[in-house]
Amino acid sequence: MDAEIITIGDELLIGQVINTNQAYIAEQLNSVGISIRRMTTVGDDLETILHACEQAWNSHEIVIATGGLGPTHDDITKTALCRFFATDLVPNASLRERIEQFMRARGMRWSAASEEQTLVPRAATLFLNPVGTAPGMLFRQAGRILIVMPGVPYEMKEIMRQSVVPYLQGLRSGAAIVHRTLRTTGIAESVLSARLGNLDDLLRGASLAFLPSPRGVRLRVTVIDTSTSSAGARADAIEQKIREKVGTYVYASGEVELEETIGALLKERRLTIATAESCTGGLVADRITNVSGSSSYFERGVITYSNHSKTELLGVPEKLLQACGAVSKEVAEAMAAGIRRMAGTDIGVSTTGIAGPTGGSQEKPVGTVWIGYADAHSTVAVRFQFGDERIRVKERASQAALEMVRRKILQLE
Amino acid sequence: MDAEIITIGDELLIGQVINTNQAYIAEQLNSVGISIRRMTTVGDDLETILHACEQAWNSHEIVIATGGLGPTHDDITKTALCRFFATDLVPNASLRERIEQFMRARGMRWSAASEEQTLVPRAATLFLNPVGTAPGMLFRQAGRILIVMPGVPYEMKEIMRQSVVPYLQGLRSGAAIVHRTLRTTGIAESVLSARLGNLDDLLRGASLAFLPSPRGVRLRVTVIDTSTSSAGARADAIEQKIREKVGTYVYASGEVELEETIGALLKERRLTIATAESCTGGLVADRITNVSGSSSYFERGVITYSNHSKTELLGVPEKLLQACGAVSKEVAEAMAAGIRRMAGTDIGVSTTGIAGPTGGSQEKPVGTVWIGYADAHSTVAVRFQFGDERIRVKERASQAALEMVRRKILQLE
Repeated sequence: MDAEIITIGDELLIGQVINTNQAYIAEQLNSVGISIRRMTTVGDDLETILHACEQAWNSHEIVIATGGLGPTHDDITKTALCRFFATDLVPNASLRERIEQFMRARGMRWSAASEEQTLVPRAATLFLNPVGTAPGMLFRQAGRILIVMPGVPYEMKEIMRQSVVPYLQGLRSGAAIVHRTLRTTGIAESVLSARLGNLDDLLRGASLAFLPSPRGVRLRVTVIDTSTSSAGARADAIEQKIREKVGTYVYASGEVELEETIGALLKERRLTIATAESCTGGLVADRITNVSGSSSYFERGVITYSNHSKTELLGVPEKLLQACGAVSKEVAEAMAAGIRRMAGTDIGVSTTGIAGPTGGSQEKPVGTVWIGYADAHSTVAVRFQFGDERIRVKERASQAALEMVRRKILQLE
Repeated sequence: MDAEIITIGDELLIGQVINTNQAYIAEQLNSVGISIRRMTTVGDDLETILHACEQAWNSHEIVIATGGLGPTHDDITKTALCRFFATDLVPNASLRERIEQFMRARGMRWSAASEEQTLVPRAATLFLNPVGTAPGMLFRQAGRILIVMPGVPYEMKEIMRQSVVPYLQGLRSGAAIVHRTLRTTGIAESVLSARLGNLDDLLRGASLAFLPSPRGVRLRVTVIDTSTSSAGARADAIEQKIREKVGTYVYASGEVELEETIGALLKERRLTIATAESCTGGLVADRITNVSGSSSYFERGVITYSNHSKTELLGVPEKLLQACGAVSKEVAEAMAAGIRRMAGTDIGVSTTGIAGPTGGSQEKPVGTVWIGYADAHSTVAVRFQFGDERIRVKERASQAALEMVRRKILQLE
């Protein structure tokens, strides 16, 4: 089954909002075996919405649309769909009750806009919105379906999770697609490609995409077969071959971030960690604490931006800072060992570098970062060069720091 | 002038990658007065790419495409465009030289893929890619243009900045669009809407969009007029009226984050700041240090995840932690005052809360966050309730903490 996603909203066309809904919906549909063939984005304009619906409806069995269902004046999707399906708006009593309840619970006052929210196209079946007032709507005609949801990401996600995905799962049939994603870091795309060798031998009809980002290169294998189990078995075999060649660079498969991999490793081995950051400014700790349950292994972190704080909080000798500079192997090691000692944890990890755009020198250009690591056995630091864009330097340095922890725990290299 | 953006890549259709290129290109085109009417996303499939090009080419004067220009096997955009423009691939000597140089500088070896990269469609004019090997390409026919760029975001951005935007600026003519965005935080969309009153009176033909996100609601005013100066004057007048009604909630206009607003305020008033975070796990400091030059006012931060670290690093009395719990007004205040004292800064700001999904109780449910603030005059803490999704709780709490700093510095309320 093929689908098209239509996202509606002027804010998307002027680039003010990044379209995260598309990716989320695509991922969900994919997981139930529905392939997205096209994604279209249009503004809050009646004719353009109608044109997009018509094109999508004529080309694909399933159309999923979001946006323009809210109570404000620029929300015209409901009107457009009434026109498209030649139906009219009628009041819905149970929806009214639901909206009244929703607003009462939040102490909000009933308004003309609320009244408008209780009207729905006669031809639509409603999907409950558990976290907002605009429901999802389903239209069916001649074996084709169109589903529309509000554009507010968390409302859309709840409707997808509770109603749309289960509904589509019921419709699905036939060929199975299996995707397998391996996340690598610390290795360039070209080096990965060279190490993997001849792709035809490796893939035997499956496909492989290289997806680079500041956090590393993801390898995505796609296998299409007659059943999920046969596609899965082929994907397993390919994954194993990839791991044989570049396995030490693979920190996770699927939608797992490096901080989650490390979290699981620390938990499993009952290790604790603390962070001492300079150039990453808290990003390493922020990522570690994005993981639920991280309080069981993350004891504390410090962001020692000033030299004085490096001495005071980490015991980095003033003389060392003067002799080597804050961005140096010696200071990175002293920071890692210092935070480990102060926090009483098994592991200490540190970052010190020049995030830029100013502060670089001939010897230490912008993007120079030292990552330090200390545990009971050793204290080390490694130098990296991460380009010249501040946010990207922080991002790449945080990834390198977490990867250093992973490699040390697993004793890789 | 109207444009369509086509983004190409299987990774987009399965939702693995969020399409940030679309938003970036849209924003840039908008800034030179070109309106985006539609955005289309298709996979790495020859027929689908051709179909999308045809539709876009027939509907709009300008088509901007990205993706599928790299050296790997799934990159077929060049082939598709040769077909579409009935042209063929020819070797380009200066491009070859440029790629050789690029690879030499990075110690990369010449390969069959590099050879392929030196071929370009005969009909294309090239735009230099300063940070990669695949150049941008321009096709012109019958007063219409199509520009294609690689899909790697930072390569695309550099080509846009150095070549595409200046080129399009040269083409542009006629009507002027001015957008004005006011960023608010700490006020709900419905309250904003009520305070603004009758929109027709306010806007007089201009348009206004409400764009909610975890960081607050942005208000986007759009004015179209005969010249940039007349549209700008009308936008100024509307902005002023909005500020009269909800000005204290507006922390910035345009693409400015709250941490930048605060950075400017701290610099201007020669104030220094330090952070003590629990539930936000470093995110507040991460955001503060995203601003270039923040080392002049950000002295240090601590992430006191354990109770022990709150006592050791911030002097929060153990008894207080036992009596009130770590998530309490008293502890938030003690943390803010503690970090201010330890760091010797003018301002201390703190967060302590339950990010979830576990750890909540009847009295303190998941999402309960206390934000503390201390300066020479006072120490205070405010309680917030931020929903039940961990990452969103961290995000909203970091925004509330920064907003507290802004309001205190400006003595609002």
